Amino acid sequence: MMTPTDQQYDMIKNSIISVPDYPKPGILFRDVTGLLETPLAYAASIELLVSHYRDKGITKVVGTEARGFLFGAPVALALGVAFVPVRKPGKLPRETLSESYDLEYGSDRLEIHTASINPSDKVLVVDDLLATGGTIGATVKLIRRLGGEVHDAAFVINLADLGGEALLNTMEVTSYSLLVFPGH
Amino acid sequence: MMTPTDQQYDMIKNSIISVPDYPKPGILFRDVTGLLETPLAYAASIELLVSHYRDKGITKVVGTEARGFLFGAPVALALGVAFVPVRKPGKLPRETLSESYDLEYGSDRLEIHTASINPSDKVLVVDDLLATGGTIGATVKLIRRLGGEVHDAAFVINLADLGGEALLNTMEVTSYSLLVFPGH
Repeated sequence: MMTPTDQQYDMIKNSIISVPDYPKPGILFRDVTGLLETPLAYAASIELLVSHYRDKGITKVVGTEARGFLFGAPVALALGVAFVPVRKPGKLPRETLSESYDLEYGSDRLEIHTASINPSDKVLVVDDLLATGGTIGATVKLIRRLGGEVHDAAFVINLADLGGEALLNTMEVTSYSLLVFPGH
Repeated sequence: MMTPTDQQYDMIKNSIISVPDYPKPGILFRDVTGLLETPLAYAASIELLVSHYRDKGITKVVGTEARGFLFGAPVALALGVAFVPVRKPGKLPRETLSESYDLEYGSDRLEIHTASINPSDKVLVVDDLLATGGTIGATVKLIRRLGGEVHDAAFVINLADLGGEALLNTMEVTSYSLLVFPGH
């Protein structure tokens, strides 16, 4: 018999749209916009993340531009803690720290306001999807450079074959994902 | 005597950080990250928007990448309706419509999934800030090209001298903003 929680996971899973051959042939892209457009499933994804982290002493949620905002911000609101955005270069107006991360071809950078994290913070990092872990790794480095403790990294989807969890392990970051899919 | 609502508006206003000379000399940038980092103020901004639009028959909330996600998504979750993202080119994996809008130098484009809006939809557009109205104008065009009705455009801040409200008026779009600041 299915529990209410089983039904929530099923609803979330069924709302993810698998798009073949995007962004290139052979890749099966997991599209979370279907989840955003299914109100009960979207609410369930936030509720499951919040129930996992309530009463853990989290002081701030950090989410990465842009899809990380869609899950991190509602989780921060529900936990009643600050939401700190990590953004692409040149978007944050106050003093920032910057970290680079590797892309398939070349690299990119992420920035955080230096005033947004301090050594007393116990931080939850939230993103939609764990793939190679590049952006999450850079985000963890930014938080730690500001003295914050990374309590955990939370995802809606873990694309298990792409190495993200292994990368987080090397950084001694634990993680939690609502759904696990094979990589491609 | 201040009402609870007056206090909410004050808390929101006090959390907005004014950054002088950003992104260039003479501009006073209104930084909403201070709001995101003040949990009671952030929650109040969502609550005030939601209370304004509850029972209006809204079927979908549309928010524009990236800061529109921070307000549109929580409002959609609280109203119990779909959240539809409007994104920069090449980010949405399914069939899209595209609209260009003018920047200070040059132009840019925004995209929406064609399947995400249909003619029965009564849409609320949510963004953090109304300035010249370029991105909101393009977003309204995308929704209307898909047959959706734009019920209203909602903002946390209206930078009143920058022409956004006038542009929306020419498009027959009504709007609502929690705070009004002069442009610069």
